[in-house]
Amino acid sequence: MSTISVPVAVPSPAEDVEQLHKAFEGWGTNERLIVSILAHRNAEQRRRIRQCYKETHGEDLLKSLDRELSRDFEKLVLIWTLDPAERDALLANEAARKGSSGNCVLIEIACARSSTELFLVRQAYHVRYKRSLEEDVASHTSENFRKLLVPLVSAYRYEGDEVNMTLAKSEAKILHENISKKHYENEELIRILTTRSRAQLAATFNQYNNGFGVPIDEDLKKSDPEGEYALALRAIICCLTSPDKYFEEVLRLAINKMGTDEEAVTRVIATRAEVDMQKIKEAYYKRNSVTLDRAISKDTSGDYEAMLLHLIGYESV
Amino acid sequence: MSTISVPVAVPSPAEDVEQLHKAFEGWGTNERLIVSILAHRNAEQRRRIRQCYKETHGEDLLKSLDRELSRDFEKLVLIWTLDPAERDALLANEAARKGSSGNCVLIEIACARSSTELFLVRQAYHVRYKRSLEEDVASHTSENFRKLLVPLVSAYRYEGDEVNMTLAKSEAKILHENISKKHYENEELIRILTTRSRAQLAATFNQYNNGFGVPIDEDLKKSDPEGEYALALRAIICCLTSPDKYFEEVLRLAINKMGTDEEAVTRVIATRAEVDMQKIKEAYYKRNSVTLDRAISKDTSGDYEAMLLHLIGYESV
Repeated sequence: MSTISVPVAVPSPAEDVEQLHKAFEGWGTNERLIVSILAHRNAEQRRRIRQCYKETHGEDLLKSLDRELSRDFEKLVLIWTLDPAERDALLANEAARKGSSGNCVLIEIACARSSTELFLVRQAYHVRYKRSLEEDVASHTSENFRKLLVPLVSAYRYEGDEVNMTLAKSEAKILHENISKKHYENEELIRILTTRSRAQLAATFNQYNNGFGVPIDEDLKKSDPEGEYALALRAIICCLTSPDKYFEEVLRLAINKMGTDEEAVTRVIATRAEVDMQKIKEAYYKRNSVTLDRAISKDTSGDYEAMLLHLIGYESV
Repeated sequence: MSTISVPVAVPSPAEDVEQLHKAFEGWGTNERLIVSILAHRNAEQRRRIRQCYKETHGEDLLKSLDRELSRDFEKLVLIWTLDPAERDALLANEAARKGSSGNCVLIEIACARSSTELFLVRQAYHVRYKRSLEEDVASHTSENFRKLLVPLVSAYRYEGDEVNMTLAKSEAKILHENISKKHYENEELIRILTTRSRAQLAATFNQYNNGFGVPIDEDLKKSDPEGEYALALRAIICCLTSPDKYFEEVLRLAINKMGTDEEAVTRVIATRAEVDMQKIKEAYYKRNSVTLDRAISKDTSGDYEAMLLHLIGYESV
């Protein structure tokens, strides 16, 4: 469930554009006004504002925002204002060029979006970068991660509920054999995780738990707590089956880090506010005994803090 | 260029449906009437006929055709009548389940369709088989072909004209090094062929020819004339750069075989009649000194022959 609140009577795009333009004018920028508009419009409304801004002022709204704002606040407002597919294309491009530290972002985009959403990201990637997403992932990643990440970002998983229980049993066995031998890069293991539907994988992971007495992600954690490949496999499994728990963990680690990881906080909040932020907040409170609002207030400040709190639905900012 | 001829005044779908229904009635089936209608309607018109038939007679037209027709003629009429994406999904499914003899069909569908067309095939595959195309390809192919075919059928190649000449040079070198060492399954070679855009690959193959004095497909042929993997790589290169020449060769081998390979003839003619059959016919005549019409007439007969000739635009059937 989304955490952003849209006013009952939404101003027209032209009115919003006029207000935004006012916020840019004169001495200094009126950041509060920007937050009060953009943090309270859904993706379709933001798209119309951007289109209307371009028609009225002959410049992309993102370009004006880029000129007026700075640092973490700027980054958050920019990626929030982008269309979701364009935003993911941008995040994926940054991640692909980063090497292994970007792997988790690629995994999120490949596994915590619907099949159609991922395809729209690939279309937006063509338009923005004049290349394909898989082409960039393939040419920037090392060989062992390539064979995992390329099929992952190229997947168009079936989204129906149908489950083949015989297959779930036999594939749970394949997964278990490879995990117990620490063969994380095994072709069959990769094939199963990168091509099967969410419903089929959920059944396979249940069979794993039933048959071997331990959840697959726990087993991976036990088998190789720090290894990069096992961590990537756990991220895939978690993004596919419990994205709210996955993103709770990303936020927790980002906030608890010495010197907050603003990049991760920005990414998670901008990409999930309209999707499942309500569930992520619940998972966060359950796991940390402190609300996400309070954790964010403690670790961030100024306009950046205000925008984050507006996006996660903290009413009395 | 398409070779099918559509009448200047096309009957309404309802009129066509009435005629088709007449063709099914009474003693025996009027195959000539079926050919005279279906072979002269484009994909959109056939789609409307199928929809109208369903509404009028409560049965899928394909089911009626399946009951009324038989053998090669039936197969040709059925796959011709299908929507192109559905048809490719069906062909890909048959091919994936066939093992290595189906590889060339998967390569055709992955490489001789546009990126958007290939994506539509993947969507149609979900609807028809309740699984993903890449999932079936991955679980049915042997390990060495899997790493080539899965990225191939999952690709969404960039389709712009932009070319990076420095990249073309360096990647031509990678391709050449691996081909001269007969390392056809090299990861880098596979990465280049399965992810780069057609325009970029065309530049890379030109650089190959310039730098090493031999076209890449000739080099592969020389290096391993009969090997299954080298043959697959040549098919990929040919489908991406000169589909008309590729399909001429498939037709030539199918027709020249002891006992014509009707499956291949049917597939090529049904899938290319509305795309580039004019060019394929020209390539066929150039290479065989006999027209495709004549070759088909010599090797096939009856309603099957008539339908093939109508589809390739032979006027005086």
